Amino acid sequence: MPRSTPSSAEQTVADIGEFGLIANIIRGLSRTPAVSVGPGDDSAVYLINGSAVTSTDILIEGVHFRRDWSSATEIGRKSVAVNAADIEAMGATPVAVVMSLGVPGDLPVRWVKDFAAGFRAEADTAGLALVGGDTSSARDITISVTVIGETGALEPVLRTGATPGEVVAVCGRLGWAAAGLTALGRGFRSPRAAVDSQRVPVVPYGEGRRAALGGATAMIDISDGLLADLNHVAQASGVWIDVETAAFEIPEPVAAVASAVGKDPLDFVLTGGEDHALAACFPMGELPSGWVGIGTVREADESGPMVTVDGRPHEGASGWEHFRRG
Amino acid sequence: MPRSTPSSAEQTVADIGEFGLIANIIRGLSRTPAVSVGPGDDSAVYLINGSAVTSTDILIEGVHFRRDWSSATEIGRKSVAVNAADIEAMGATPVAVVMSLGVPGDLPVRWVKDFAAGFRAEADTAGLALVGGDTSSARDITISVTVIGETGALEPVLRTGATPGEVVAVCGRLGWAAAGLTALGRGFRSPRAAVDSQRVPVVPYGEGRRAALGGATAMIDISDGLLADLNHVAQASGVWIDVETAAFEIPEPVAAVASAVGKDPLDFVLTGGEDHALAACFPMGELPSGWVGIGTVREADESGPMVTVDGRPHEGASGWEHFRRG
Repeated sequence: MPRSTPSSAEQTVADIGEFGLIANIIRGLSRTPAVSVGPGDDSAVYLINGSAVTSTDILIEGVHFRRDWSSATEIGRKSVAVNAADIEAMGATPVAVVMSLGVPGDLPVRWVKDFAAGFRAEADTAGLALVGGDTSSARDITISVTVIGETGALEPVLRTGATPGEVVAVCGRLGWAAAGLTALGRGFRSPRAAVDSQRVPVVPYGEGRRAALGGATAMIDISDGLLADLNHVAQASGVWIDVETAAFEIPEPVAAVASAVGKDPLDFVLTGGEDHALAACFPMGELPSGWVGIGTVREADESGPMVTVDGRPHEGASGWEHFRRG
Repeated sequence: MPRSTPSSAEQTVADIGEFGLIANIIRGLSRTPAVSVGPGDDSAVYLINGSAVTSTDILIEGVHFRRDWSSATEIGRKSVAVNAADIEAMGATPVAVVMSLGVPGDLPVRWVKDFAAGFRAEADTAGLALVGGDTSSARDITISVTVIGETGALEPVLRTGATPGEVVAVCGRLGWAAAGLTALGRGFRSPRAAVDSQRVPVVPYGEGRRAALGGATAMIDISDGLLADLNHVAQASGVWIDVETAAFEIPEPVAAVASAVGKDPLDFVLTGGEDHALAACFPMGELPSGWVGIGTVREADESGPMVTVDGRPHEGASGWEHFRRG
């Protein structure tokens, strides 16, 4: 075989400079009809129907992701997905996204190209146009994403609207990402479906909007874990939410990891974070297809707003919090 | 004197955790009539009149600021100002801002409080409501800000609209921040006005909108330096921009630093970045008050679009670029 010439895989960000970095990010960018000014002017310009809906997240290497656990493409996709899920959770439609990227100078250009490809692919799937961004040098790879959506003719679906007598339903995966993280943490790369879910959440795009059209009264993105996030709804709405464990089918990859580590698979389903499924409350009656009823909304009793499992308090970990010691 | 009890200045971010950090950022937040949902739900919701206009910047300690050169309050103010200036440069009105903050666990809570106070103060000045954000642990303080504005009934003012025969005008400070940086770099804390300009740019809020109402055909935020940014306009519009040095009055603090370091003060004015003044092109005639004519737009000749100074090419540094070696 002929010896290969130095490939672009060996080029670093320092070699191509800031403008080269930007060129790699915006190359092949698709534009939607809403966008009148994309990257390149002082600001981007795009149309918003109804009210604007905005969410932002920051992802930092070593805190939110590891390069040896996730490919650049996966990290690019995930950085879009976690934000787009927040727009879905308002019953809104994703429109535009801006992204800032801080990287060390010795980062291979190949990593940036793959990251940008993943970012663009997930943005396309979510219906988002990348309209602008910023770049910087940084010791740790740092990704900041802001997504802007629109409500159209509907009111946004907040966390405050849950009313006693309603059904609590979910759409999307529960426990997959946590099971995948457990597998990765023990050095396994399988079950593949769970590990993939940890690397890139499978956001049920369009289902937030469908829930809003279907009469959802309250909705939330499940990022911290089902019980922790339902508790946000319970507190905001001043209600008692009871989850019925009989309503859940345990997904096979979750069951496999639970069995391997000797854990109750329901723990993954009820408390596992990072799946970015949606939970919503609906008036009693028909649920939108794809949504599964998993509980009920009740009047808060003297204990105040809370979440119970089969009528009883759940003993378990709460959501993830940065900074806390031990 | 009595011994002081442990003060909150000694508390660190690790002591108060993520929720404590967020509480310190959103405490005392003012809300504008445009905002219907502020921080606390999955996304923020607010009204946009006309088209949405968005800009984003990332600021990282050691790259964009130093804690020994700028106070936390100044860094908070600057992180808003640099973005709001990009909205002004579109002739748009600032509406909403989201901010992500990554900080090391050993950062004093006092720093966060002062940063948040500066952020809120500048946001208030710019007319921006802080509607959401994210926090994370990070090795270096990392600030990502996204600003959303609105065009109202006007078209956005792009870089592409400059036409031969027009006047080029500026509004705001030129060279002050670069002079301040030079002073700081040599260990001086004066002249105070220049050093302050480096720490917090004095953005001419409202002047971008006034320029748009006054007929501006092209506009840009001067972040890299007057000539470098006018070159962006020249390239985008396909014109030749000639700057007349006789039109500039050298500001006293800039003259003082130039004299101290043996440099031509015009170099600061023409090439100094980070002032976030505005440059715009107007049809010949009356300029909005506060705007000063400093050049003319001509037909590009066979050399192509360019910027000249008194009819000649300028020999000097171009804009700041991250990553580049040597």
